[in-house]
Amino acid sequence: MIGTIDVRVRYSETDQMGRTHHRHYLVWCELGRTTLMREHGVSYARLERDGLMLPVARAAVEYRGATLYDELVRIETWVERVRSRDIQFGYRIRRAKDDEVVATATTTLVSADADGRPVRLPPDVRAALEALVVARNGARAR
Amino acid sequence: MIGTIDVRVRYSETDQMGRTHHRHYLVWCELGRTTLMREHGVSYARLERDGLMLPVARAAVEYRGATLYDELVRIETWVERVRSRDIQFGYRIRRAKDDEVVATATTTLVSADADGRPVRLPPDVRAALEALVVARNGARAR
Amino acid sequence: MIGTIDVRVRYSETDQMGRTHHRHYLVWCELGRTTLMREHGVSYARLERDGLMLPVARAAVEYRGATLYDELVRIETWVERVRSRDIQFGYRIRRAKDDEVVATATTTLVSADADGRPVRLPPDVRAALEALVVARNGARAR
Amino acid sequence: MIGTIDVRVRYSETDQMGRTHHRHYLVWCELGRTTLMREHGVSYARLERDGLMLPVARAAVEYRGATLYDELVRIETWVERVRSRDIQFGYRIRRAKDDEVVATATTTLVSADADGRPVRLPPDVRAALEALVVARNGARAR
Repeated sequence: MIGTIDVRVRYSETDQMGRTHHRHYLVWCELGRTTLMREHGVSYARLERDGLMLPVARAAVEYRGATLYDELVRIETWVERVRSRDIQFGYRIRRAKDDEVVATATTTLVSADADGRPVRLPPDVRAALEALVVARNGARAR
Repeated sequence: MIGTIDVRVRYSETDQMGRTHHRHYLVWCELGRTTLMREHGVSYARLERDGLMLPVARAAVEYRGATLYDELVRIETWVERVRSRDIQFGYRIRRAKDDEVVATATTTLVSADADGRPVRLPPDVRAALEALVVARNGARAR
Repeated sequence: MIGTIDVRVRYSETDQMGRTHHRHYLVWCELGRTTLMREHGVSYARLERDGLMLPVARAAVEYRGATLYDELVRIETWVERVRSRDIQFGYRIRRAKDDEVVATATTTLVSADADGRPVRLPPDVRAALEALVVARNGARAR
Repeated sequence: MIGTIDVRVRYSETDQMGRTHHRHYLVWCELGRTTLMREHGVSYARLERDGLMLPVARAAVEYRGATLYDELVRIETWVERVRSRDIQFGYRIRRAKDDEVVATATTTLVSADADGRPVRLPPDVRAALEALVVARNGARAR
């Protein structure tokens, strides 16, 4: 199950190189996974109200091309792996106008309580996320 | 009492106009007032641990000039007014190399409890801030 | 003519008070005005490619309420005044679920060439923006 | 040669988990490498004025612990590898008060002209950066 969300590059996200500053790709990944989760019944907002946090433990981004102000960008997100205390997401970011992949990324999130201590994922959350797992690389018929 | 703190414009703070994006001046003001307060015994971090929040209720910035990547910027901060439930700060932002004023600003912060409800400032906090009040415009001998 | 765009509060836009950090309202205003302009034939991206910049010269925000992670926020934008070298925009930001106004704002943008020197607005841009002017306060039938 | 710079976590860098939002570690890495380069005669600002850009092509961060508002953070930066068209930097981020490593990171930057096309690093820049290379992992006597 690959989630898709489109965002437009904001002026405030550009830097003086005239392109999206590279840190914003992590924000786009966050948008991708929270949207995917919300669409499948796992609301990040509700998890936190219930005392579960999902801090990022590892992030890697490969930037293959630049994105420019006002361009539409498509964020594809999938779950690569779910374990008792962590989840790994994969991402592919495309320029919408030509479907070109401008970045790929992975992030690993750990399950923690309100004090930041590692805890097991609640069974229903784990089950919901496991149902979303796709093959590594989020292979997709283009 | 005027507090002063110097910051260098970060690359990530520029936009494609080649200057600091205007939202960051609000971050600089926040740096200015939290530094002024910390230096006078009122730690924002401790206030929050004690259940007091100081959300911004009003902000106004006049941008007189641009600041560029890597430039040193000087933030001057003072308290303009303290009331039972709010505090008004004034700011002057200078380019360090030529002392030119590149922006002026004011912000009003309200006193709220952890649930966001308005509360009176604790007497010691109010007293500490009142001791810092300077004449409007933070007049300063250049 | 009031432009409207909805945005969802991103996790990365929250701060430890548990609400949208106040600087992001300036980003939302920027989104509001660039969207309004694009919808009426004045593309910010194209203006810049043609050598015209519109830096912010003044910004004022009144924060009336907090917005929370994942909430939908509605940005209403209008043109308050157009002069030969500057434009003033007005904004009203609502929480979508209850239509509550959480902030109002105004910003003044100046017309500058690629080197930052003030220049007159091109006649077609000025005409397009003047056609959008609404009464101060962007009065709207609720 | 390991460069060191201290920064204090800004309020605006926290998120509602009550810790620094993970994207800011990329900003700290950028601060680390631009400071290291400036201190060794390679000014990023001047490179860009001369038409050379150094966009990030790859970034990986491992987050081992949280950092909190107002904490002092120490960024250690070194050059891991210089090639004709790219540079790899390594980073270790420590909480200053207890010297605890809260994150490690690497980024690869490519050499590009003002239009974003890959170009060779200027010989003087390459030489200056090669003089800074340290063993992988930036081994340091603690």
